[in-house]
Amino acid sequence: MKTRAALAFAPNKPLEIHEVDLEGPRAGEVLVEIMATGVCHTDSYTLDGKDSEGIFPSILGHEGAGIVREVGEGVTSVKPGDHVIPLYTPECRQCKSCLSQKTNLCTSIRSTQGQGLMPDGTSRFSLNGEKIHHYMGCSTFSNFTVMPEIALAKIREDAPFDKVCYIGCGVTTGVGAVIFTAGVEPGANVAVFGLGGIGLNVIQAARMVGADKIIGIDITPSKRAHAEKFGMTDFINPNEIGMDKVVEAILDISGGGADYSFDCTGNVNVMRQALECCHRGWGESIIIGVAEAGQEISTRPFQLVTGRVWKGSAFGGARGRTDVPKIVDWYMDGKIDIDSLITHKMPLDDINTAFDLMHAGESIRSVVEF
Amino acid sequence: MKTRAALAFAPNKPLEIHEVDLEGPRAGEVLVEIMATGVCHTDSYTLDGKDSEGIFPSILGHEGAGIVREVGEGVTSVKPGDHVIPLYTPECRQCKSCLSQKTNLCTSIRSTQGQGLMPDGTSRFSLNGEKIHHYMGCSTFSNFTVMPEIALAKIREDAPFDKVCYIGCGVTTGVGAVIFTAGVEPGANVAVFGLGGIGLNVIQAARMVGADKIIGIDITPSKRAHAEKFGMTDFINPNEIGMDKVVEAILDISGGGADYSFDCTGNVNVMRQALECCHRGWGESIIIGVAEAGQEISTRPFQLVTGRVWKGSAFGGARGRTDVPKIVDWYMDGKIDIDSLITHKMPLDDINTAFDLMHAGESIRSVVEF
Repeated sequence: MKTRAALAFAPNKPLEIHEVDLEGPRAGEVLVEIMATGVCHTDSYTLDGKDSEGIFPSILGHEGAGIVREVGEGVTSVKPGDHVIPLYTPECRQCKSCLSQKTNLCTSIRSTQGQGLMPDGTSRFSLNGEKIHHYMGCSTFSNFTVMPEIALAKIREDAPFDKVCYIGCGVTTGVGAVIFTAGVEPGANVAVFGLGGIGLNVIQAARMVGADKIIGIDITPSKRAHAEKFGMTDFINPNEIGMDKVVEAILDISGGGADYSFDCTGNVNVMRQALECCHRGWGESIIIGVAEAGQEISTRPFQLVTGRVWKGSAFGGARGRTDVPKIVDWYMDGKIDIDSLITHKMPLDDINTAFDLMHAGESIRSVVEF
Repeated sequence: MKTRAALAFAPNKPLEIHEVDLEGPRAGEVLVEIMATGVCHTDSYTLDGKDSEGIFPSILGHEGAGIVREVGEGVTSVKPGDHVIPLYTPECRQCKSCLSQKTNLCTSIRSTQGQGLMPDGTSRFSLNGEKIHHYMGCSTFSNFTVMPEIALAKIREDAPFDKVCYIGCGVTTGVGAVIFTAGVEPGANVAVFGLGGIGLNVIQAARMVGADKIIGIDITPSKRAHAEKFGMTDFINPNEIGMDKVVEAILDISGGGADYSFDCTGNVNVMRQALECCHRGWGESIIIGVAEAGQEISTRPFQLVTGRVWKGSAFGGARGRTDVPKIVDWYMDGKIDIDSLITHKMPLDDINTAFDLMHAGESIRSVVEF
């Protein structure tokens, strides 16, 4: 079949819209009609050539929502008509990682996914006979895409595609880090470094689970008002109080340190502050942000020996098929807000505008509707 | 009263045996007759002038066992005749830390303890009218000492003092890190960096809880045989295979990485290896060793984002009054071996020999018997 898609031919070039060829689903695969897709920093990271493992030509996009249109041989967990969110972190429920019940980082199709291919080592996309690569196992910048069955979360049918697509990455990354990775409990004090989309999702999840102090840290004063609407109780601007006073300020506000802190900046110096602002004895710091290649985090080991814990979170620690439908429910029940995080919507033809807005810091999330 | 004690008058000088004056216990305090005490690296660290917060003159020693001889006003949890182990990490059961149930790092008397004083801000020790400081709230290099009630673990009376004194620090630090900090479960694969006394205690605790692979890493081949007796299943000598091959070797042996790793070296480069040899998705690395002042640990944040956890352990995460008596039971039940770790015994007059043996690497643990 043919499908319209935004193609990335090379780093640092705008995406180009083409009618590409899409093979139907093979065994264990599913054809999905993408109804909406968010445009995420990770897409930009790849398109800007910062990801040394980026593969071109490819169809980017990994934050979508859509409808199953056809299933391949042996597919049993979804059927045509089902509403789904594609998962760049699949959940096979059979690999060592899934069976450990200690991680969401399913490894069953990791190697082919990293090569921009389906699990059988081939691509379904082509243009004029030339292979086009998949991206993060999703390629949601295409009106139709083919996904492995284990990489689809089946969701309720009354959930609006143009909102819940954001659960495919950003919402789950932030909300999940609070709930699945950290396990923040009622009454906990939380510090959130970086008040972009991820930070706002961390904040609203902390509010949802009953956190006490929710301290936001950002150098952009204009982010304060929005963050307060999402549940931030205290705001620290490092540029105002001095970068070296941030940890002390958090210790003051929280009465000894954060029970949980979250880095949503990707800045390794901030990651250190996020650890060191944690409460002696038990404070846990969770790294969500992606650092630049080659950057390293550091601290004195004394920080850990006296009880602080340093960990990270990928896809919010969420098991995609199990947890993503729950987050959709939380949105539909009004426990979390997605609508006001989606600041821009556009058709596929205007997708490059989404990247421009992101680079200019003018969007929280842009969503492309098909 | 008078008591014989080994005095540290200044850094880098041998201890001197003197009859010192000891005031009786005040309210909430207990007079303890020390029957035996281990000589630990931390005593040496202070005596060698490496601890910038070391206080002189003082009576060192923090790894003892003895008998309650007199209690001060209001003391209810111990009585004369009780057998006890002094705790440099007390357990008041009333401070924010104790009540959190998330840490063993009781803070109730931390500030005075750090100043070498009893909780009321004074010292019980003096020589010719001059104040002698307490050390780590214990001062077990004295035949009699005064302890806060909250810093005494009451233990069974059939436990031999010259063995269970080692539970006052080294045994609990290693065994506790496995059981209380890490919570190693049956079937887990464990990597232990450094096969000194702490490392051997980590190994035997891992065996006790049913770990599968117990991989020891040390540059001294002669430590292998002893470690195998304690439960080590695999040995890696970095000098033989190359320092940069250690992580890979652990991944091979454990089939993907250690579920838990323990640094018992205090070397920050080793701490990094200990983290990076952990299994993707869930491996936890626990820092036990004390690094030199100013040294820092580093890694790429990707190591944490992909699921590894970096934490530390002090006094094995053990709550002193609650958990130390359990460890005494484990020793008495034959679940852990202490006898073969105590390589030297001596009277107080020969205590400087213990430091010489330690510096020469010829002892695992020396115990002074009164």
